[in-house]
Amino acid sequence: MALTAPIKPLGSDPASVFSIVGKHMAALDEFMRHQAGEFEPEIREMATYCLDTSGKRLRPTLVFISGWNDAARVDEALVRAAGVVEMVHLATLVHDDIMDRAEIRRSRKTAARQFGPDAAVLLGDALFSQALHIASLFPTTEVCRLVSESTRKVCSGEIMQTLRRRDYSVSLEDYRRIIDLKTAELFRVSCYLGAMLAGHETAFVRAADRFGHHLGIAYQIYDDLVDFLGDEKKAGKTLGTDLDSGKLTLPLMLLLERLPVPERNELTAALTNGLSPGLAASKQRMSDLGIADAIVAAIEEELVKALGALAPHAQLAPVPLMSALAELLRKQVAALSVGTGS
Amino acid sequence: MALTAPIKPLGSDPASVFSIVGKHMAALDEFMRHQAGEFEPEIREMATYCLDTSGKRLRPTLVFISGWNDAARVDEALVRAAGVVEMVHLATLVHDDIMDRAEIRRSRKTAARQFGPDAAVLLGDALFSQALHIASLFPTTEVCRLVSESTRKVCSGEIMQTLRRRDYSVSLEDYRRIIDLKTAELFRVSCYLGAMLAGHETAFVRAADRFGHHLGIAYQIYDDLVDFLGDEKKAGKTLGTDLDSGKLTLPLMLLLERLPVPERNELTAALTNGLSPGLAASKQRMSDLGIADAIVAAIEEELVKALGALAPHAQLAPVPLMSALAELLRKQVAALSVGTGS
Repeated sequence: MALTAPIKPLGSDPASVFSIVGKHMAALDEFMRHQAGEFEPEIREMATYCLDTSGKRLRPTLVFISGWNDAARVDEALVRAAGVVEMVHLATLVHDDIMDRAEIRRSRKTAARQFGPDAAVLLGDALFSQALHIASLFPTTEVCRLVSESTRKVCSGEIMQTLRRRDYSVSLEDYRRIIDLKTAELFRVSCYLGAMLAGHETAFVRAADRFGHHLGIAYQIYDDLVDFLGDEKKAGKTLGTDLDSGKLTLPLMLLLERLPVPERNELTAALTNGLSPGLAASKQRMSDLGIADAIVAAIEEELVKALGALAPHAQLAPVPLMSALAELLRKQVAALSVGTGS
Repeated sequence: MALTAPIKPLGSDPASVFSIVGKHMAALDEFMRHQAGEFEPEIREMATYCLDTSGKRLRPTLVFISGWNDAARVDEALVRAAGVVEMVHLATLVHDDIMDRAEIRRSRKTAARQFGPDAAVLLGDALFSQALHIASLFPTTEVCRLVSESTRKVCSGEIMQTLRRRDYSVSLEDYRRIIDLKTAELFRVSCYLGAMLAGHETAFVRAADRFGHHLGIAYQIYDDLVDFLGDEKKAGKTLGTDLDSGKLTLPLMLLLERLPVPERNELTAALTNGLSPGLAASKQRMSDLGIADAIVAAIEEELVKALGALAPHAQLAPVPLMSALAELLRKQVAALSVGTGS
């Protein structure tokens, strides 16, 4: 697929976007460490466990690059906003892992496994509350307003997904609506906040918003693909859980769509009855049916839209960084599908 | 125990406090109905189920009476603040009922039972988010700041309670800390917000804050007593769940303290092993050991402190209403202990 938007890679390696925001990320680390101290002493250790900073921190990266002004100076407002979106994200992970019965996240026990599911429900709540508390420390109510609404949307998307588990009649449109809410929403608001807080012009704030939205969709489809095709050690989490938990993902939807009828019925029956169809067998069939290629194309379509939104603002400082991040996702997608021989 | 604070009852029946705030409560009903429409269409019906207004709405009542100015005019800011605290409270109930495995709340199925525990986790999250979203619609960040911090404290108290389930070595001090956080905190902030938003003087805002704190503790001890001694039909919820779920409450703490050693060891062993010791037998022993009286005295102590905080502000419009609410709780406590022959 041809790329229609201008890309200005940062040197030869788009991954350098992470080193460029390194100072901001270090400030975020410090901010999160300080945040752990804001929790009641009795739950501080648990909060610290959840605030662990070994994750990809994609949403903070989006805040930093969308609000990029000057590499030399760390923008404290951006750091705080990054802390808000990351803490909301970490809270959703704590709750997701309860529902997915996931044991491992970021190469160690999930909070649900470490503290029990009941405590994990409440711990997620405390993280949500503290995220909104940080948001309320901005001079105006805008951050609070945007983040609380986004958080509600993220939860709504998760509810829809949960209620439709083991329902294999979900349309592509419904699937899109779910990932719009559960993933693209927080990507979108991260970019919006970054651009807005850095004082960029309204047209660019809107463009950043659209970039975040499309990048979020692309990322969720990629993440779903990793759950099917990825390497568990590299991912640092239990894979195949989407399939086992009956979560409808694009890989599974396409697999069901393309399988011969008897095989499809067999798989649907297994999934409906909560039997794990086995990741290895499904992987093989996905490869046979060229599903990875179709998914790569779907991701590419979103990346093109994301980059297209930035095109009229090529002269602004954030754009090369944002483009590089989209490029990086494209490279990872390519590596994943090549790595599996698809 | 002698009452040291001045009380100005409203007519002969302190329950009339609820009819006095009736217009505000009707406006809150309308506000909550409108709020249901703010949720994503796909989860609106579930949100509506949770936003059901048949509860006691104690926290909204606290907002209304603490901010009382003029019965003729409904104060929209108070209605909105009442909506915020009630929605936070409803969210905590949704999550509590998951952990308590409670089937019935307000004479109908709990959200966890109706929609499943996974969806209920997320639905509670969506309610928390929307509560903070309403808070963010005030002109300044203050409501958001106060409510998000309170919510974190409420969750922290719940976490402590959850982690110490079936731990019967909890001190009275720990118990107090837990109910301070899980209950008194939201009572406190409700009174603070009411007085503050109505533009009352700082000294009274602080007094309202202290009133709410002590009333909250009194209420939680009363509520724990209801779980032991109450009438299930009247309470509209499953009773005895605290005991079954191993939650440490003041009635149970006193029961364990006062039982002869062999009987105490037997009860502790039963509770530790998750065996229900049977509400009826425990009720009988509580009555034998005069525990209800000791609990009534503990509640009375808090009510005296709550009313004492109001004493210097007797001339202000909210005070007769706040006093009447404390009186009403006192009457309910008396009715409960009389009703059980204690």
